[in-house]
Amino acid sequence: MDHTPSFGTKRRRTRSVRVGDVTIGARAPVSVQSMTKTHTEDVDATLAQITELARLGCDIIRCAVPNRKAARALPRITAASPIPVIADIHFDHNLALLAIDAGADGVRINPGNMRNREGLKKVYRAASEAGIKVRIGVNSGSIRPRKGLEVRPEAQHEEMADLMVREALAYAEAAEKEGLRDIVLSLKGSDVPTTIAAYRAAAARCDYPFHLGVTAAGPPNISIVRSAIGIGTLLAEGIGDTIRVSMTGPPQEEVGAGIAMLEALRLRAPVGPQIISCPTCARCEVDLSALVEEVVRRVQGLSIPVKIAVMGCVVNGPGEAAEADVGIAGGKDFGYLFRRGKKVRKVDASQLADALIAEIEKLSSGGDGPQE
Amino acid sequence: MDHTPSFGTKRRRTRSVRVGDVTIGARAPVSVQSMTKTHTEDVDATLAQITELARLGCDIIRCAVPNRKAARALPRITAASPIPVIADIHFDHNLALLAIDAGADGVRINPGNMRNREGLKKVYRAASEAGIKVRIGVNSGSIRPRKGLEVRPEAQHEEMADLMVREALAYAEAAEKEGLRDIVLSLKGSDVPTTIAAYRAAAARCDYPFHLGVTAAGPPNISIVRSAIGIGTLLAEGIGDTIRVSMTGPPQEEVGAGIAMLEALRLRAPVGPQIISCPTCARCEVDLSALVEEVVRRVQGLSIPVKIAVMGCVVNGPGEAAEADVGIAGGKDFGYLFRRGKKVRKVDASQLADALIAEIEKLSSGGDGPQE
Repeated sequence: MDHTPSFGTKRRRTRSVRVGDVTIGARAPVSVQSMTKTHTEDVDATLAQITELARLGCDIIRCAVPNRKAARALPRITAASPIPVIADIHFDHNLALLAIDAGADGVRINPGNMRNREGLKKVYRAASEAGIKVRIGVNSGSIRPRKGLEVRPEAQHEEMADLMVREALAYAEAAEKEGLRDIVLSLKGSDVPTTIAAYRAAAARCDYPFHLGVTAAGPPNISIVRSAIGIGTLLAEGIGDTIRVSMTGPPQEEVGAGIAMLEALRLRAPVGPQIISCPTCARCEVDLSALVEEVVRRVQGLSIPVKIAVMGCVVNGPGEAAEADVGIAGGKDFGYLFRRGKKVRKVDASQLADALIAEIEKLSSGGDGPQE
Repeated sequence: MDHTPSFGTKRRRTRSVRVGDVTIGARAPVSVQSMTKTHTEDVDATLAQITELARLGCDIIRCAVPNRKAARALPRITAASPIPVIADIHFDHNLALLAIDAGADGVRINPGNMRNREGLKKVYRAASEAGIKVRIGVNSGSIRPRKGLEVRPEAQHEEMADLMVREALAYAEAAEKEGLRDIVLSLKGSDVPTTIAAYRAAAARCDYPFHLGVTAAGPPNISIVRSAIGIGTLLAEGIGDTIRVSMTGPPQEEVGAGIAMLEALRLRAPVGPQIISCPTCARCEVDLSALVEEVVRRVQGLSIPVKIAVMGCVVNGPGEAAEADVGIAGGKDFGYLFRRGKKVRKVDASQLADALIAEIEKLSSGGDGPQE
């Protein structure tokens, strides 16, 4: 995959942790994760979902292993998956040991809900011997404020964040004592301020790479806002090495949203066209939403990373979208085709989309590619 | 409106600028703006849209004034609007003067496209005399890189940001010379890194309040990601005093997205229920998306700010959503109703939504309200 990180913010320096053929941390490209929502023991359905997610740009996949039936399916999944597979384990250290035996490229545990301390040590030692990584994931939901700690309402997330960081670092220290070096941390609060505060505080106190996410983020439209703010803020500060957008919805949408976030921050080079379009106002004389939808539909699947503008105003449009490689500005009867802010020619209003697509095809046929 | 800022990040200190009865800056609650997409001269349609947006929580509205017909409609709009009205002017300083006469609560100009320098000074003086604010809005689209400035691809946005800040501050200085004090700045790049870099750089160099936005952000699904990252990152750093999510789509969605961003950062107290829900995984035995949709539909319109969890796992759900005031965790045959992480009772799978709604009604009827 052609990741080209170019966001100027200096990324936090971390140790390097390998998961299969993907590097997490050490300023490697930020990877996108998702989680299968099939039953893990249904190997065909699970592999089909993984394969589709990989095709959409997912770099690492996680599968829940809630029981032995799921654990027994893992070897066939890890053997056939096109991307590294991480086993997600709750409560039972024996399932984690089975997952490591099954060839998982990593395991994700929350030591807070794995009560068997000796079992937990076995997991760390087995992972270390197998050379795979362990994500130690702490959720605000699993932290119980200590006795005697009065939590002021307005500072709640700062104090919760501090508890989460202290807990995560204590767990990591225990894992290191068992010889484990390949550790990734996550500190997911159930709200955005807690999540941001926890990662910011942890960033200064360790060199572990971070898995970013906002937990229980909700249905897609709500999750996207919460996740984009939580994950985006941290990435824009140089914090975060692998991300997962979690939503109550199809994993395909999780991957799409994750990639959109990286592209928005220029942490991943777009593989296809990027569309910018104006919000319209009283100046607009065309049905711009319909025009944008048509353009989106017609450029789908193109693999040229051209920046396309669809603007609703012949007067302001070309200038305001001067960064676009190519664009159209619509008017009542006619509009303009433009390139890099310069009008190419006047076009009948009904022909604007056609003219744009023809110009993009000219660009993509080479010789006259996008300038950047 | 009940804004309760509680996000711990210290907000940038700015001068206070009043727009009608709304304060921008000086750590006043971050206000949400949108822009009418009607023809401004259609007073009835414009006022109907403003009234609906105000009902949805929009604090300030902007109307484009592209011509004299629109300017002549403004007095009736400003007189009847339930929220402050800002006139958006391009090119023609005379339209700005007409808007000020018409009782607009502010004008938004980009001095870069108002070529008549004497006319521009008249606008500043008229605004100062009328006691209204001027937003000086600089877009990356209107900046031309200076001759001799080689822009390295990977640093492009940092250098563009610097040009934008220098230009905006020069314009503001010129406005202050004419006696204008009530200035709000915006520095919108057409991509997120440029926008973030510009506002960050400007934050250290002036005390003007900032209007945040990402320009030409695209259709709703793309705009929400770009805007949430751009606006959210800055707000999470304490930067930004009023926001507008710009999208090629209905202004109602712009307002909804803007409010969702402020709520996610706890910069605005939610007026209704907040729903958190898990992303589901192999552990899930219910159609959680359908359950979430049902709950979303049935709590719509409730004005109690209760935090509701809808989880797909009877084993992990209640604990992972311990912050929720009330929640349900679904299983194959039965699930649990829980409050603050503690199971209240076992519920038949088909009755989960009913049980949740009944519990919320119990909460909202008082006596036993949400704890926070």
